[in-house]
Amino acid sequence: MTALARLIQRFKQLPGIGEKSAQRIARYILRIEHEDAARLSEAILEARSRTRTCRRCGNLTEDEFCEICKDPSRVQTEICVVEEAFDIPLIERAGAYQGLYHVLGGVLSPMEDVSADELRITELVERVKNEGTKEVILATSATTEGETTALYVAGQLKGMGIRVSRIARGIPVGADLGLADEVTISKAIRGRESLDSGERT
Amino acid sequence: MTALARLIQRFKQLPGIGEKSAQRIARYILRIEHEDAARLSEAILEARSRTRTCRRCGNLTEDEFCEICKDPSRVQTEICVVEEAFDIPLIERAGAYQGLYHVLGGVLSPMEDVSADELRITELVERVKNEGTKEVILATSATTEGETTALYVAGQLKGMGIRVSRIARGIPVGADLGLADEVTISKAIRGRESLDSGERT
Repeated sequence: MTALARLIQRFKQLPGIGEKSAQRIARYILRIEHEDAARLSEAILEARSRTRTCRRCGNLTEDEFCEICKDPSRVQTEICVVEEAFDIPLIERAGAYQGLYHVLGGVLSPMEDVSADELRITELVERVKNEGTKEVILATSATTEGETTALYVAGQLKGMGIRVSRIARGIPVGADLGLADEVTISKAIRGRESLDSGERT
Repeated sequence: MTALARLIQRFKQLPGIGEKSAQRIARYILRIEHEDAARLSEAILEARSRTRTCRRCGNLTEDEFCEICKDPSRVQTEICVVEEAFDIPLIERAGAYQGLYHVLGGVLSPMEDVSADELRITELVERVKNEGTKEVILATSATTEGETTALYVAGQLKGMGIRVSRIARGIPVGADLGLADEVTISKAIRGRESLDSGERT
């Protein structure tokens, strides 16, 4: 097998890359400068070896603690629980949250055989106990598995004297009501906000 | 910038990879074994450094000459002219051609400022002169640029006493006639084959 065939094969193993895409990428790699190919190659190794998870929240970092955990200006009494570290930049970009995070590392899934002890739930309960947390916001996906996980985590946090909330489900901003399904519309109506105060009713 | 951010950035530069795909791939690379990441990284470098172009036909190879040029069982008097080396495996897989190839390295394109002297046309004319070629099959794309290039190359080979042919344009096998455009249908009719002999009329 040639080095080129091996390259195509390796790229085909990446998620979302089929035969045609792998070929297109291989063609590109043969065309670019040797240095640029070296940089791509190096970026893979470096990201793999340097990136680790934050000891406290599970976010991706190159140090012991992540940038958010190290930032004293973040609200230390709020924890936003997400499925994966990659969800954090999405929420950060939205700019509406100033607290800390906690990465579960997945969702409960009987189908994919993911049980509660494989998620970082015990670690979350410990944090709530030790960090003086006042609110935990459950920001798992609005899928069945995400909802189940949120309910399970909420159950584990019960009786700890903190507020446990769930991100709102509703019509995506900019979306036509006609494109939303009934469950979403029903959630959007139940979670409606009063327009005079701007507060949730 | 973190190593992870750099990885995402590098992947975004690859053709057909957007922000979301780059993130998905980065997530995958962080999850796989270190060895597998190393293999992917190495595959890029190796393909880039080992792959070169065949001195004779321009096909991709790791040696001076490509597998096809080195194979004495190939018909030495036929040359199939293609735009890119990546077109060769497509034709090989079809299994209908036993001759040699010649890679132009692109198509004539006033839009992208590709002129005739940037394509390996002189090399083709030299080969035809020296190799006892009897037929040159022009297998450039059925696009405007591919057709223009085929006509130009045919012009350069005029008067050399060889047969110059163009691959047939027509209805793709398995495709509904209703989906074909008028130009394709017109080409398909003009290029019709007689059913009793199987030969082109």
